[in-house]
Amino acid sequence: MNVEFMNPFLTATINVLKTMCFTDVTAGKPYIKKDKISCGDVSGVVGITGPPNGSMSLTFNKDCIIQIVSNMLGESFKDINDDIKDAVGELSNMISGTARNDLGNNGYSFKTSIPTVVSGPKHEIRHMCKAPTIAIPFTTSGGSFVVEISFEG
Amino acid sequence: MNVEFMNPFLTATINVLKTMCFTDVTAGKPYIKKDKISCGDVSGVVGITGPPNGSMSLTFNKDCIIQIVSNMLGESFKDINDDIKDAVGELSNMISGTARNDLGNNGYSFKTSIPTVVSGPKHEIRHMCKAPTIAIPFTTSGGSFVVEISFEG
Repeated sequence: MNVEFMNPFLTATINVLKTMCFTDVTAGKPYIKKDKISCGDVSGVVGITGPPNGSMSLTFNKDCIIQIVSNMLGESFKDINDDIKDAVGELSNMISGTARNDLGNNGYSFKTSIPTVVSGPKHEIRHMCKAPTIAIPFTTSGGSFVVEISFEG
Repeated sequence: MNVEFMNPFLTATINVLKTMCFTDVTAGKPYIKKDKISCGDVSGVVGITGPPNGSMSLTFNKDCIIQIVSNMLGESFKDINDDIKDAVGELSNMISGTARNDLGNNGYSFKTSIPTVVSGPKHEIRHMCKAPTIAIPFTTSGGSFVVEISFEG
């Protein structure tokens, strides 16, 4: 994977969470996802078409997303309900769209699909690409989440 | 959603399962997914870009996918392991690719992303599109699965 593709997703995540959810996030060191499996309670998945084709996911644990969406909507949530799932779809859309525009400014033409939101305790997400998947871990005061991106070739 | 988009996914599912997995599947009556939530144990998700943009998912229960992949690979599986997850990615790729080509022959130009595979007991998939999601239920001798497609506008 072209490493130039990673930074736009990293900065988009920080900026979208800051501006839309009033949430400060800290990026950890990105790593190649090999044996390490990311599990979470709610995920947003966005398909990317180029070439190269790819995919992006955001995977949150329950406490983390509840705090983020509580900040975002100014309402206190206790569980992963429909509002939280809709918000994960919105965040996936905004982060992938912001990264896509940023990549567009650098001469890469990508399109992004409508997001799909997965919920269920401790589900696992796998990007079915022969090239390595890059995972970027983030922490917030409410917990951690991971952004994964994968591109063929 | 343009109903013309549905049939290519329906026939691609039947044909791919028949030719690649030696598995006969019967399509049930497609329905608009409203309150009805599809839950499963392993899913493949593919992003679609047009316009219109969209997404497709295949969601299998455990017994159903174990029988399908056992047929496909000529090996007997007992649980959802990496081989099964890889096969769900492959099937998602083949079904979306076949449907995309079929739509292309009818003048619709779509691209499809690399698939993402979700695993975890009883997870739920939601396509985050304002337009209705169409679900097509299928049955096999090993159990049932559902194909969902969603397109904006």
